[in-house]
Amino acid sequence: MEAVKPYKSKYDYSYSLGAFPTYELIKYRPEWVCEVYVHSSYTDYENLKELCGKSNIRLFQNDKVISRLSDKENVYVIGVYQKHSLPLDKKASHIMLVNPGNMGNAGTIIRTAIGFGIHDLAIISPGVDIHNPKVVRGSMGALFHMNVAYFESYAEYAEQYCGGGRACFAFMLTAKEQLTAAHAPKPELFTLIFGNEATGLPEEYAEYANPVMIPQSGEVDSLNLTIAAGIGMYLFTVNGR
Amino acid sequence: MEAVKPYKSKYDYSYSLGAFPTYELIKYRPEWVCEVYVHSSYTDYENLKELCGKSNIRLFQNDKVISRLSDKENVYVIGVYQKHSLPLDKKASHIMLVNPGNMGNAGTIIRTAIGFGIHDLAIISPGVDIHNPKVVRGSMGALFHMNVAYFESYAEYAEQYCGGGRACFAFMLTAKEQLTAAHAPKPELFTLIFGNEATGLPEEYAEYANPVMIPQSGEVDSLNLTIAAGIGMYLFTVNGR
Repeated sequence: MEAVKPYKSKYDYSYSLGAFPTYELIKYRPEWVCEVYVHSSYTDYENLKELCGKSNIRLFQNDKVISRLSDKENVYVIGVYQKHSLPLDKKASHIMLVNPGNMGNAGTIIRTAIGFGIHDLAIISPGVDIHNPKVVRGSMGALFHMNVAYFESYAEYAEQYCGGGRACFAFMLTAKEQLTAAHAPKPELFTLIFGNEATGLPEEYAEYANPVMIPQSGEVDSLNLTIAAGIGMYLFTVNGR
Repeated sequence: MEAVKPYKSKYDYSYSLGAFPTYELIKYRPEWVCEVYVHSSYTDYENLKELCGKSNIRLFQNDKVISRLSDKENVYVIGVYQKHSLPLDKKASHIMLVNPGNMGNAGTIIRTAIGFGIHDLAIISPGVDIHNPKVVRGSMGALFHMNVAYFESYAEYAEQYCGGGRACFAFMLTAKEQLTAAHAPKPELFTLIFGNEATGLPEEYAEYANPVMIPQSGEVDSLNLTIAAGIGMYLFTVNGR
């Protein structure tokens, strides 16, 4: 590693900040890892050393590097990894985020998707950089279980992935179809589409996909994006299976 | 208002930071409001003035106060209000947070609860101060639709509120009962109990209440607290009703 600098999107490498996300990185994407840094006061050093050794990953004790990258938070372990872009699985169900704006939310949605067995994420640009360390940390390392691909438009995604019995659902507050457990569709192969935190999905998504909404009281303007996505993913994976 | 200082828990007043939460404050708890501050560049001044006028609330244009309280974020309107503690409704369903640690999460859970028509929140101490402006802002003002009460222990809560057919459910990863839509209980009157972000619920809650869990893959250590609470509240309010 020549330089260890705070992350920028233009770099072809990124960082996993924290022991938990770094263990996930090493376990699930060992071939991505450049090297691992550990703080001298980290208490589980022997385990980490063994895990790195198994995958021939270099491990350095370096408190200065840790403090330079860790951005105020308590961080004892950092992984440096090469960023990769992985194609989505055509035979698997997907989640799609259209112009996601908040890194913490993106991380939480990735973690939730993995929790419900969804391993493929499409992002319609512009949207957050999922390799930003804030997303990696927000996902608790679940990012390393996920295929993520960016698309310029819904049409570009549809051309590659729609068809083959895939049913697409657009979560929109203007939708007439209310997702109660009793009435939720149960497709085998699906894509769940969620919009930006502030602006929601553009109206044309009601044409691209089946518009649906989670019933909610008029007392709030909407559910938080991560909550809506969590309930949506639960309904389409766990519900009634 | 004698002093306008950054919030401290020991004060008997707090702030709603931002136009949306402040409108909620004025509409739902006008009797709590001490005064409202607005920035000179706020574009919806006339509306705000009319709303304050209806409730005889004093409105001051004061950019210095706004910048002193707003903590880096873009804030144009601030409400100053007297904190109140409201008893819970014995005939309504509740949510309970045991030792909640994160203010943003508490705000999100409050917003979600109001979205699903749950207006009563019990907090087992120690836990976040729900009047901290970060909670108020995280809730998007939904806090002003909610009764919130603190308890020293579960026993103190149970003494006042259990009985009368109330069914209590403890969300725990060690629970055997899996909440699928087909198998979720449908009690009329319930309390949903969630633990701390990092440590979950203490084991004894499996004795106090019915332990349940949301089915999830072993690929993540757990769902995020706000997501689990969101799915739980959805299942008990919307599901099959």
